[in-house]
Amino acid sequence: MNKMTDENYMRKAIELSIKNIDENGGPFGAVIVKDGEIIAQGVNRVTSNVDPTAHAEVNAIREASKKLGTFDLSGCVIYSSCEPCPMCLGAIYWAHLDKLYYANTKQNAKDIGFDDSFIYEEIDLPKEKRKIPTIQILNQEALVAFEKWRKMDNKIEY
Amino acid sequence: MNKMTDENYMRKAIELSIKNIDENGGPFGAVIVKDGEIIAQGVNRVTSNVDPTAHAEVNAIREASKKLGTFDLSGCVIYSSCEPCPMCLGAIYWAHLDKLYYANTKQNAKDIGFDDSFIYEEIDLPKEKRKIPTIQILNQEALVAFEKWRKMDNKIEY
Repeated sequence: MNKMTDENYMRKAIELSIKNIDENGGPFGAVIVKDGEIIAQGVNRVTSNVDPTAHAEVNAIREASKKLGTFDLSGCVIYSSCEPCPMCLGAIYWAHLDKLYYANTKQNAKDIGFDDSFIYEEIDLPKEKRKIPTIQILNQEALVAFEKWRKMDNKIEY
Repeated sequence: MNKMTDENYMRKAIELSIKNIDENGGPFGAVIVKDGEIIAQGVNRVTSNVDPTAHAEVNAIREASKKLGTFDLSGCVIYSSCEPCPMCLGAIYWAHLDKLYYANTKQNAKDIGFDDSFIYEEIDLPKEKRKIPTIQILNQEALVAFEKWRKMDNKIEY
């Protein structure tokens, strides 16, 4: 029996990224592996699904969570054909994935017209310098929810 | 007729965040407004939907996109009961929202046990210092997809 290597899993993600172009999607693919088996895959469906959050990694994470019946993907590894954008990197952290392999860089993505690099730059700026105006209001009123959460006994943490 | 103010919209997001705790969700809510009307709302359904990406802002963006039939939410404003985490901030940029209002801060979220602040710190680190090992492989093979995308004539950009 052939043992699958990291390169094999990544080649699957790359294959998905190429095929997805012919299926009206962006050039991005990802697979999630647990115990040596590909348990989920995702491709970019932003335009076809009319969903700006439908990136390859997010889709793969959502599929893996559904399949395993848990929001905690500890023990899983993700192989993404491109360095995750901040949205997808955030999703990878929230999902507690063990490890991340990527192939193309955010600079490669920028070179063909994608905003990944721009969004990383924006996150690094103080809020008042960002392109999307970002304003805080009603902090005290919103804290009521956090206080209620803090006092709750039987909550499911994540 | 009463004109809705930014505070009114935010109070709706806060109300959702409080109510969501009683409905087995995290203490987060968001609404999206276009032309003075709330067109979508979202709450945190990570544990209940078994989906680590089901944050309030992501859910509101997905609903707004579905409702308007477009992945481009230019002309819309989002009111979130908490400063968006990197995943949600990324989603807000991809959706091209005009403006972001938030109430609680990532520090407030950290104080009640959420990882938002940690993930911001991770994004700032060079990859080799991050808690989730992040490794690049097969860049040249993956570039085939980007080259194919670049050469394509009738693609839908986003």
